[in-house]
Amino acid sequence: MHRPPRAFEDAEFAARCAAAQAAMQQAGVAAILLTSEAEIRYFTGFMTQFWQSPTRPWFVVMPLSGKPIAVIPSIGAPLMRQGYVGDIISWASPDEDDDGITLVADVIRQHVSKDAALGMLMGRETAVRMPLADLFALQKILNMPLRDMTAAIQKIRMVKSPAEQAKLRYICGIVADVFEHVPEWLRPGMPLDACFRRFKMDALERGVDDVSYLVGAAGAGGYDDIIAPPTSTPVAAGDVVMFDTGCVWDGYFSDFDRNFSIGPPSQQAADAHKTLFDATEAALAMLRPGITAADLFTTMDKILRPDGSAGGDDVGRYGHGLGIQLTETPSHTAWDRTEITAGMALTIEPSISYGSGFVMVAEENLLVHDDHIELLSRRAPRELPVI
Amino acid sequence: MHRPPRAFEDAEFAARCAAAQAAMQQAGVAAILLTSEAEIRYFTGFMTQFWQSPTRPWFVVMPLSGKPIAVIPSIGAPLMRQGYVGDIISWASPDEDDDGITLVADVIRQHVSKDAALGMLMGRETAVRMPLADLFALQKILNMPLRDMTAAIQKIRMVKSPAEQAKLRYICGIVADVFEHVPEWLRPGMPLDACFRRFKMDALERGVDDVSYLVGAAGAGGYDDIIAPPTSTPVAAGDVVMFDTGCVWDGYFSDFDRNFSIGPPSQQAADAHKTLFDATEAALAMLRPGITAADLFTTMDKILRPDGSAGGDDVGRYGHGLGIQLTETPSHTAWDRTEITAGMALTIEPSISYGSGFVMVAEENLLVHDDHIELLSRRAPRELPVI
Repeated sequence: MHRPPRAFEDAEFAARCAAAQAAMQQAGVAAILLTSEAEIRYFTGFMTQFWQSPTRPWFVVMPLSGKPIAVIPSIGAPLMRQGYVGDIISWASPDEDDDGITLVADVIRQHVSKDAALGMLMGRETAVRMPLADLFALQKILNMPLRDMTAAIQKIRMVKSPAEQAKLRYICGIVADVFEHVPEWLRPGMPLDACFRRFKMDALERGVDDVSYLVGAAGAGGYDDIIAPPTSTPVAAGDVVMFDTGCVWDGYFSDFDRNFSIGPPSQQAADAHKTLFDATEAALAMLRPGITAADLFTTMDKILRPDGSAGGDDVGRYGHGLGIQLTETPSHTAWDRTEITAGMALTIEPSISYGSGFVMVAEENLLVHDDHIELLSRRAPRELPVI
Repeated sequence: MHRPPRAFEDAEFAARCAAAQAAMQQAGVAAILLTSEAEIRYFTGFMTQFWQSPTRPWFVVMPLSGKPIAVIPSIGAPLMRQGYVGDIISWASPDEDDDGITLVADVIRQHVSKDAALGMLMGRETAVRMPLADLFALQKILNMPLRDMTAAIQKIRMVKSPAEQAKLRYICGIVADVFEHVPEWLRPGMPLDACFRRFKMDALERGVDDVSYLVGAAGAGGYDDIIAPPTSTPVAAGDVVMFDTGCVWDGYFSDFDRNFSIGPPSQQAADAHKTLFDATEAALAMLRPGITAADLFTTMDKILRPDGSAGGDDVGRYGHGLGIQLTETPSHTAWDRTEITAGMALTIEPSISYGSGFVMVAEENLLVHDDHIELLSRRAPRELPVI
């Protein structure tokens, strides 16, 4: 498998910033305040697991032209200097009285004149990562209109550059290998948490940077939960076992799962797996630039819930975008009219209810190209694999 | 090493909720709205890596008495049912028009009468995890005063129960083993990212659930960055190598690091390591219930910066609390007057500048008891270990 280079050329970030700045121009927004990991990483390349510490706030201000400006704790300045930024203003955080608020307000005021608006990400799938009291204080100091730039930024992020596509291709390829080898080690009698640990070690051994997300379940005849951490209960004959993982390489995520039956499955479980396969197949057959996320939902829903009964309700959607977060826009729901375009990285993730409260989920990852769909995962078989 | 049971008894959560409710009573707060992973897990036991997906908001309302009420996406209901909650109100999220706002507003209104206030976490180390536009909409619907409950909740969380202490003891013990074995495999010529991968596999092999945080650095004579992901540059003779990890078992974090020299270190690096050891020793010697976090800072700072010169400024503090997040309150800064009490889990984390722009950090983890300090990490030696 070809391992792409780590990080990006400056031109990658310059293009991302230029796209955001064009949207700002159109929206009458003179600067955007970014506060969260994904947004700051997307525009500056600043990548660290230090976000796990909730202690310090981090600010990046996107001006109408030029590089982003970082207003960050001093502890992050050496790393930020390697990123795509102009000025770096830093302070010894945590500070008792003023944890960066005056500094970031000054930078914003230098870029936003009295009659302009400040952009923020205020919409679906976003959250402002700073203390609410500090946000209210900042609003009061600035006293300027806020404008939601969520849709514009998401539109940019949804289309992956060739360099981003290479990273997604690489991480999904490794994870496909990990899944392919599961039948070699998964055995009845193994506690589920030991299976998870084994899965993670295998993924690391094969080259992922991190197994940032691994959920799953095992249960006689099926499972009813798809986001739980593992118990120590041993996997047993008759179980349906599911692993769903978001592995990361150089900050880019895979997100797909696989189901296994320990010994022969029930007819219902076997049928559920086939239905999921067929729904995925139908989605892949119609997927091309110009359709919408809602079209994907509708196509899959017809197969998953032919009588319109309950089924996908609990999950809320049949897949989503993929990139520097485990899930990104769009959402394959009945209402998401986002047009699918070349360059999008998507998951196709049908789910189905069956038996007495069981649910089953299948997931594939792919890239949308002008004239074809490129599978990043290796297609699950129609028959539920038996171990 | 004794492996404690996973999860907690209901009595643990009942005590946490009762403590919060007593603080609410005193503050005239009729309910608290919780939105983020750590807060919701602390009071309900709801633990999942699904928080990595930014798509859906999660709400828990803490009433003045009784169990917390969950207002959550249906996809999380099966897992939440195993938690410490009363009612679970759920909806198929993501929803186009109303992603839980009307539902959570209804629950809040049932508990907060016209003359009472709604508590939220608005202070240091917190962030509201929901779209800002939805938060503004919720404020408008509710039209009730908000009161910041950060200090009260942090005060409760800082003191760890015996069951929490057992989990911290277990994870720190495993990580101490991992560090002890680093000299067996760390060799010049290994790319740093391969070293990171090896470290993670070893930690998993020894029983951690996740290596949620691993940062570090390697450089000739020292390093200048303590939060970066690894490069592919091979470790070389003369390098100082540092690994700083937050490993997790059953949701509880370790957080300590270790420094190594590849071959004999420079005098400056060797001296820096000794000074860090001495600062830690001084902190450990004075650490007991009744002192403050600021006392710890002052004691260490006198050794680290005897002339008051720059040194710890970039990091901003010399340690912090530890628990279900990589870093928790208090902060060992000049200004944090939090009184140290029995039951606290703390890190002691002095840092020092030396040579041409190098920094070195040492870290230990411990529990504060009435009459003694219990080291959770295994004390680093005074001499910088040579590989």
